[in-house]
Amino acid sequence: MGNFKGHALPGSFFLLFGLWWSVKYPLKYVCRKNKNACYLGSRAGFQRLEFIEGIIKAVFALIGMIAEQFVPDGPHLKLYNYEEKHWDHLMNWQHATMYLFYGISGLVDVVAHGTNALPVALDRMMLSLAVFIEGFLFYYHIHGRDMLDFHVHQLLLVAIFGAALCILLEVFFRGSIVLEMLRTSLCILQGSWLWQIGFVLYPPNGRLEWNQMDHNNMMFLTMCYCWHYAFAFLILAVNYTIVSCTLLLKNCLLSHSVCMKF
Amino acid sequence: MGNFKGHALPGSFFLLFGLWWSVKYPLKYVCRKNKNACYLGSRAGFQRLEFIEGIIKAVFALIGMIAEQFVPDGPHLKLYNYEEKHWDHLMNWQHATMYLFYGISGLVDVVAHGTNALPVALDRMMLSLAVFIEGFLFYYHIHGRDMLDFHVHQLLLVAIFGAALCILLEVFFRGSIVLEMLRTSLCILQGSWLWQIGFVLYPPNGRLEWNQMDHNNMMFLTMCYCWHYAFAFLILAVNYTIVSCTLLLKNCLLSHSVCMKF
Amino acid sequence: MGNFKGHALPGSFFLLFGLWWSVKYPLKYVCRKNKNACYLGSRAGFQRLEFIEGIIKAVFALIGMIAEQFVPDGPHLKLYNYEEKHWDHLMNWQHATMYLFYGISGLVDVVAHGTNALPVALDRMMLSLAVFIEGFLFYYHIHGRDMLDFHVHQLLLVAIFGAALCILLEVFFRGSIVLEMLRTSLCILQGSWLWQIGFVLYPPNGRLEWNQMDHNNMMFLTMCYCWHYAFAFLILAVNYTIVSCTLLLKNCLLSHSVCMKF
Amino acid sequence: MGNFKGHALPGSFFLLFGLWWSVKYPLKYVCRKNKNACYLGSRAGFQRLEFIEGIIKAVFALIGMIAEQFVPDGPHLKLYNYEEKHWDHLMNWQHATMYLFYGISGLVDVVAHGTNALPVALDRMMLSLAVFIEGFLFYYHIHGRDMLDFHVHQLLLVAIFGAALCILLEVFFRGSIVLEMLRTSLCILQGSWLWQIGFVLYPPNGRLEWNQMDHNNMMFLTMCYCWHYAFAFLILAVNYTIVSCTLLLKNCLLSHSVCMKF
Repeated sequence: MGNFKGHALPGSFFLLFGLWWSVKYPLKYVCRKNKNACYLGSRAGFQRLEFIEGIIKAVFALIGMIAEQFVPDGPHLKLYNYEEKHWDHLMNWQHATMYLFYGISGLVDVVAHGTNALPVALDRMMLSLAVFIEGFLFYYHIHGRDMLDFHVHQLLLVAIFGAALCILLEVFFRGSIVLEMLRTSLCILQGSWLWQIGFVLYPPNGRLEWNQMDHNNMMFLTMCYCWHYAFAFLILAVNYTIVSCTLLLKNCLLSHSVCMKF
Repeated sequence: MGNFKGHALPGSFFLLFGLWWSVKYPLKYVCRKNKNACYLGSRAGFQRLEFIEGIIKAVFALIGMIAEQFVPDGPHLKLYNYEEKHWDHLMNWQHATMYLFYGISGLVDVVAHGTNALPVALDRMMLSLAVFIEGFLFYYHIHGRDMLDFHVHQLLLVAIFGAALCILLEVFFRGSIVLEMLRTSLCILQGSWLWQIGFVLYPPNGRLEWNQMDHNNMMFLTMCYCWHYAFAFLILAVNYTIVSCTLLLKNCLLSHSVCMKF
Repeated sequence: MGNFKGHALPGSFFLLFGLWWSVKYPLKYVCRKNKNACYLGSRAGFQRLEFIEGIIKAVFALIGMIAEQFVPDGPHLKLYNYEEKHWDHLMNWQHATMYLFYGISGLVDVVAHGTNALPVALDRMMLSLAVFIEGFLFYYHIHGRDMLDFHVHQLLLVAIFGAALCILLEVFFRGSIVLEMLRTSLCILQGSWLWQIGFVLYPPNGRLEWNQMDHNNMMFLTMCYCWHYAFAFLILAVNYTIVSCTLLLKNCLLSHSVCMKF
Repeated sequence: MGNFKGHALPGSFFLLFGLWWSVKYPLKYVCRKNKNACYLGSRAGFQRLEFIEGIIKAVFALIGMIAEQFVPDGPHLKLYNYEEKHWDHLMNWQHATMYLFYGISGLVDVVAHGTNALPVALDRMMLSLAVFIEGFLFYYHIHGRDMLDFHVHQLLLVAIFGAALCILLEVFFRGSIVLEMLRTSLCILQGSWLWQIGFVLYPPNGRLEWNQMDHNNMMFLTMCYCWHYAFAFLILAVNYTIVSCTLLLKNCLLSHSVCMKF
């Protein structure tokens, strides 16, 4: 998928999940702090959310895998071209492999939160592994590319491995709002940066391509990456404010005790 | 042991241990959760298992060391060839050193779980060190090899150092089912990947050798590594299901209280 | 800001914060240990201090950003020079980006300690990220410079990433005096080393420049870095002694019970 | 100190400390487990031991610093040779810097365990920093040497940074026997490996020098390093056995209750 769409599509998925998490985790936190503030935020409710999230993740991953295989110029499940003696569409296979692990992570979410057969912490470990595998495949993916191409993907790797580490920490410090918000911010960053990569490497509408060898471009993109991250925090802050204000206002109308406390 | 057997044999040991752990740890977890579900799963019973595991580990390591020394083209305990003034069979000595640390780990297991003279957490630390030493020796072992050869061993190192880190974490989070399953999966991965290395570098039955310099081969093998890992999780999932179903069914026949709960 | 002032100014800020922390944290520790020793050191008092610190941090960051933009040879908010088709004053933009994250960290401090809307641990995470981003931008900043220039900035990176890691640990071990003192020492080190870099790369008063290619200069500076660190600990020790002696003496005059204990 | 003595002397100090720790920590552990087994092992007794250890560390460090400065071919406190315009005896200054941090660590031990003015955990952090600084200086020290020389020092770095990490963990998991024994083993390893480096690089008695460019020598030394580590564990095991047997036997003669339990 070495084109604009191939970066924008997964980028959108990450943005979608990031935005959703930037609503969900503040909601969960505010509910936990003001127990009487929200009736919807019961423990069971949030567990059901995780269950649904798992289903969506698994479905997205399945769609991704099928798409990678059966797009017109895809491998159609053929791995080796015996006539010409070379591997067939390795790129698509690699992307399908990435989706596979997100699919497994989704399945584990479903089983861990739908039944009580699995230890709950397993969902974070599988997500961490899925993100790690994504980074791992990317790492060997970008070997030997042009300087700028290499650089923008390397920056992406920082977000990916950072997220993998953050989720691994969540296995041990489960429910820590700080880690959950860090993860959310890294997820939004990854999504928006994938869009940026698309714009840089495959400028749509025939706009001028970036000079791959200009050191200044590299320095600008490093800085741009930080702005994306600042932007992710802005989104997080806005959503956090909206969620907590809405919840507290609604509560004020119902009872006066919380308003006083606030 | 630069041949097919030399990779398949240790690979089989790792697979054996991985498969055994993929039964043992789910069993332990289910027993801990449903205290009345299994009479065999008492604390003392599992400690005896660790004791036996230690003995098996130590015996395997001893056999490995002796085999490396006394195979027909082995060093027979001779380290330096004084006539030709060079080190003798360094490869075999290195493998024997790897086994030595697994042997020490086995001994520590035996003493820590057989008597109460040693702190129990020491077994994990010695295992972590044994795995680390294995990775450490491998790391300097593969210096200066061909690209593909280097790459497949480098991938192995990811599993090895990952396992070493995971076991080190177990020293502090002992009995965490998540870490135990991570360790199991990495152990199975290491075993099956050793088999894969054997097939890639020393194709049996005179099949065509892999092109050491083809970048596509490298990319395929990176992906293949991920499939091995997915396969390890499949095994884990199947064994986990079998174990928990068996245990709960058996329990249902004995008493009805658990069935209701389930 | 590739001149002496450009290194001395941020260096002074770090020194200022480091010196302030080297008074604040011992004060907090002694107060916590001898509850009746200080009336000023109530929990609320220290929270107000963090609030004020946040404001100062945010103001400093804002001033820094404005200064970087509107100095005579600054970019004046112009990012791309369309006539000559190159990025404009990237250095200033990068420094402004660094300050931006310290500004965000300051804002989070203000909100987290001024209201109870945000989880308190978020202040440490944002500070850790701000320091990490500083190191991240530096890392790509110093690419391809002369040996000595590269080396002195690389040494700076050790202090920066060390501090980022230390503050990340504080998220989980909040209020640990050991981590707080480690952070303080690394902050002083960073400040004094920025001054040192200024003296080495831009010797004021037209003194002789350092030979960029002399390996001995590099070795000396590595050692010099350690002396700076030892010096940071000296400052820490002196301030710690002054603070605890003052507090205990003052207390002795008020009541005799503590004097006996001491 | 680029000679045999210059490696054997610090090696002996590390061996001494390692051997002492291999007696002290098992003693402490056995005493803690069998409270009535040893009257000497009171909490206060062990604190006094740490106090004395700190004094010895500080004195050794002071002697080391003075020796490095005032040996016949030392710098005699002269840092820069103004006549010939180059740095004077940088090696000796670097070694003195290493000792300086061990001295600081010793001083912190003395103050932390002699008075109750300092937080106790600070002793581990300073020791960790001293070991880290040692590794840090070594790292830039060995830049650009011959292959074998570089390799043996690089192996040393593994032990040094491993020890620094282990001691850092002790800040958070203080008194963990597992970490204390890991530290002890790494300390013995460092000591014995310094001796080995002396024998390899400066063979005493005019024996044949090692071929610096032979790849087999490198592989042998990597393996040899592991044997040193196995040897360190052997010492640890022997001392542990002696200590616990002595203690329990002595106790058996006094009372019968413990014998039964054992």
